[in-house]
Amino acid sequence: MVIAEHLTLQGNPSGGVLGRLVRVCASQGLDSMAAELDRMSEFIGADLSLVEAELRERPMRLDVVGRAAHQLLSVGGKRLRPLSVLLAARMGSGFGPAVQHLAVAVELVHNATLLHDDVVDQGETRRGSSTARMIYGNAASVFAGDWLLVEALRRVHQAGVPELLDRLLDVIDAMITAEAQQLENRGSFRLDLATYDAIILGKTASLFEWALFAGARAGGLSSSEAQALATYGRELGLAFQIVDDVLDVEGSLTDTQKSPLADVREGKLTFPLIVAAAREPRVVSLLREIAAIPEGSALPPEARQALLAALERTGGLEEGKRRARSHVQAARDALSRFPESSRKSALLFVSEAAVSRVG
Amino acid sequence: MVIAEHLTLQGNPSGGVLGRLVRVCASQGLDSMAAELDRMSEFIGADLSLVEAELRERPMRLDVVGRAAHQLLSVGGKRLRPLSVLLAARMGSGFGPAVQHLAVAVELVHNATLLHDDVVDQGETRRGSSTARMIYGNAASVFAGDWLLVEALRRVHQAGVPELLDRLLDVIDAMITAEAQQLENRGSFRLDLATYDAIILGKTASLFEWALFAGARAGGLSSSEAQALATYGRELGLAFQIVDDVLDVEGSLTDTQKSPLADVREGKLTFPLIVAAAREPRVVSLLREIAAIPEGSALPPEARQALLAALERTGGLEEGKRRARSHVQAARDALSRFPESSRKSALLFVSEAAVSRVG
Repeated sequence: MVIAEHLTLQGNPSGGVLGRLVRVCASQGLDSMAAELDRMSEFIGADLSLVEAELRERPMRLDVVGRAAHQLLSVGGKRLRPLSVLLAARMGSGFGPAVQHLAVAVELVHNATLLHDDVVDQGETRRGSSTARMIYGNAASVFAGDWLLVEALRRVHQAGVPELLDRLLDVIDAMITAEAQQLENRGSFRLDLATYDAIILGKTASLFEWALFAGARAGGLSSSEAQALATYGRELGLAFQIVDDVLDVEGSLTDTQKSPLADVREGKLTFPLIVAAAREPRVVSLLREIAAIPEGSALPPEARQALLAALERTGGLEEGKRRARSHVQAARDALSRFPESSRKSALLFVSEAAVSRVG
Repeated sequence: MVIAEHLTLQGNPSGGVLGRLVRVCASQGLDSMAAELDRMSEFIGADLSLVEAELRERPMRLDVVGRAAHQLLSVGGKRLRPLSVLLAARMGSGFGPAVQHLAVAVELVHNATLLHDDVVDQGETRRGSSTARMIYGNAASVFAGDWLLVEALRRVHQAGVPELLDRLLDVIDAMITAEAQQLENRGSFRLDLATYDAIILGKTASLFEWALFAGARAGGLSSSEAQALATYGRELGLAFQIVDDVLDVEGSLTDTQKSPLADVREGKLTFPLIVAAAREPRVVSLLREIAAIPEGSALPPEARQALLAALERTGGLEEGKRRARSHVQAARDALSRFPESSRKSALLFVSEAAVSRVG
């Protein structure tokens, strides 16, 4: 299938969200869905290749800062944000130089935040490779994040689409606010859902919202059409983050090979654990114990079992999946004003794929 | 004197470069120069107060990121970059909302780089206070730097003067390139003057160059007039950085109370030491010994004496002062196209002040 090949060419072993969907369709004999995906790949594959080539192969700065940035960009990632820009643009007049600038820019912003996050959280691995800071040091990683931000803003400015630069600066501001909220709640292990929602809105959903809005405006859609797509992006981002949280907790507790509960050890709570802690206050002390385990040590089997049992009793994981599905529904609803088309189906596939990961 | 009062109101105990000049004039009985400074304060003091108020008192974000940024902004600094914007604007039509945006923005960029530098260099004090990272942590300081960058870019975008946003992004890029060059040469203790010049051009001079250009364009000057002022800014920045280097080495070696040779201990070479190392190769091994002294330990008196003697034999400090003066001359020359006026004198005072610190 063209899209599967394309995604393999990207060097992303998991094939990203779309690659996963292709495999799911194939294994479940969903021929019509697979055919739809193939149609989608025809009109989006070439666009994605150009974006990917720019992210990966463009003549990068050769100094230590450039190498640190390139290290992260070249290990891949799902490229969901550029894909969002491209699909939104296809709802209008389609691909062009401005759309390419915006699609590259959104991935650069995302990677800039990852570089700074890894310094701040002392992260050692990312996307299955060593983090840039482990290879090139914290200094190079901080400056590499700064540089990717500059490169992103240059492209958005160059795209010349009104409003987009201001809105992107607002998004980066919102991302920083979310980081501050997370810092301020670090280690308390009590987080209300309103704060959690605000954090994932700022950290994840706001950039997806921008990606869809930017693609739509660059594709010539009206302000209100672009706003509908922006809402789609925001809900998709919320669903995506909650699914990530669910998978992370689930994976940590069932796959003993995985680095156990990295978020908890950094003092951060995610959706399933917030629900569990709210419904069973003694989960809070269990989480504190887990956070106190020295770095590098394994999670004791009893702690693992106790947390898994609490999540089952409180339904934390199920509640997370439910919440993610409801965001996907809200995303779909936001597109109701657009007539059915293969372009719209392609967009809907992305949110479909986001929740397909948790069944 | 109005300007001295103004600078004291800024809460800057040293009174900044202009405050120092006022004192020098007063102590040396240079009445005409002091009178000139007073005239200067009349037309620039009010502008500076507005900028200072915005930097210091505007409703800041109240979270930990905002507090980290505010901590640095509120301990003051010489505000030389905003002053440069204001003086350049006065060469044209003068102060206005766009000029204020640009003057605030340039100081925010400068402070953003300081926040990131302090994380990277693990700096503990800055401007006589604890660094933001010592009070609020590395994470808050990294995000505070990111945030100040966003705030700066917003203002430049809002000022709406053509070219300035692109040029500022180029300057930030140049600052990052200079940081990378410094990282790559760290610990080698052999640096050629061409690399040193490239580093200080990127790290310091490029932002001064932008400040003058931005003020000039916002003040309605022509592109070629603005370019002449930009050259003035670049030469002023180069002079300023070399003087800083000379004062740092001189102060470290003569005032035993000062934290000794912080740059050398971070593996960085500055102008006087580059000259000394080039002229007496055994200075390199002496510098390596100094860099190897454990953090927190004092500089042994013999090392101090040996380095001071080498600097005297090689003329490293004198050569630095000479080089700074030649940049100030180049700065003056760049203004030759403008007729004499109190506005031009005010501008020239800034470079005068930069070298007055080393006599």
